[in-house]
Amino acid sequence: MEAKNSTQPVAVLPLEASLSLVNSKLHIIGQAGNFEPIDTDYIPPYGDGMGYMPLQLFLISFGACVAGSVLTILRRMKKNIEVFDMNVRGIRRTEHPTSFSEITAEYIITSNDVTEADVQKALTLSEQSICPVWAMIKGNVDVKSIITIKNTD
Amino acid sequence: MEAKNSTQPVAVLPLEASLSLVNSKLHIIGQAGNFEPIDTDYIPPYGDGMGYMPLQLFLISFGACVAGSVLTILRRMKKNIEVFDMNVRGIRRTEHPTSFSEITAEYIITSNDVTEADVQKALTLSEQSICPVWAMIKGNVDVKSIITIKNTD
Repeated sequence: MEAKNSTQPVAVLPLEASLSLVNSKLHIIGQAGNFEPIDTDYIPPYGDGMGYMPLQLFLISFGACVAGSVLTILRRMKKNIEVFDMNVRGIRRTEHPTSFSEITAEYIITSNDVTEADVQKALTLSEQSICPVWAMIKGNVDVKSIITIKNTD
Repeated sequence: MEAKNSTQPVAVLPLEASLSLVNSKLHIIGQAGNFEPIDTDYIPPYGDGMGYMPLQLFLISFGACVAGSVLTILRRMKKNIEVFDMNVRGIRRTEHPTSFSEITAEYIITSNDVTEADVQKALTLSEQSICPVWAMIKGNVDVKSIITIKNTD
């Protein structure tokens, strides 16, 4: 996200997170930066459902990453975004490890000038050179996009 | 996490998350299940640092996933875990996309019977067949482990 030219080196700091088990099952609290700690857990019988499953957190990480890229690109195109919502759905493998074989991200944008082609262009750039979370799952997860524009013009 | 035999099909539901942009920069609130919404954002100038960067959330997702796998395996080995903490650090590429080229996860375990070899065995199983977040970044991110045992025996 930091630079416009993907061939230029970017100054980036390492990122860190800490996690602590807080019960006798799998309730783990994670934290990074100075932000609110996040409860994570698993569904019974492994956990007690006291927090986000790691794969749910992954969907939010992926969604926020793509959203940040797409919004930045659309704004560089001088587009006006009134509302930007996303729904992200992951289909898990039925054999271990039960990772996502497919993720479908729906982009719901209210605007007077954004077109589906604009969003598609931003998504192509995001996938190719901007969104780091997308880059880390490349070749392992099939990502599909649904674009819904609510035109207020 | 659901089955002991990685060749057996596992009943898994799709997972979903929703995200909404809440300001004119990149402050996005994400949510899944019935859990507390999570603030995400970017550092200035793109965002205002009002929440987790997507890559920080990714580290928590990855850490909680590996922790869940490792704890489950150690408990199946009848090991006694008194304290389980993790520090996860990601080194980002200096060209776009600035994804993690390397993640180092440190496992700090207080126990009277867990050995470094036990944890290494659990990590090998987690990587090979249990932890879905690890599976999704395979081939794209180099994962290193540091094991620290505090023996209370």
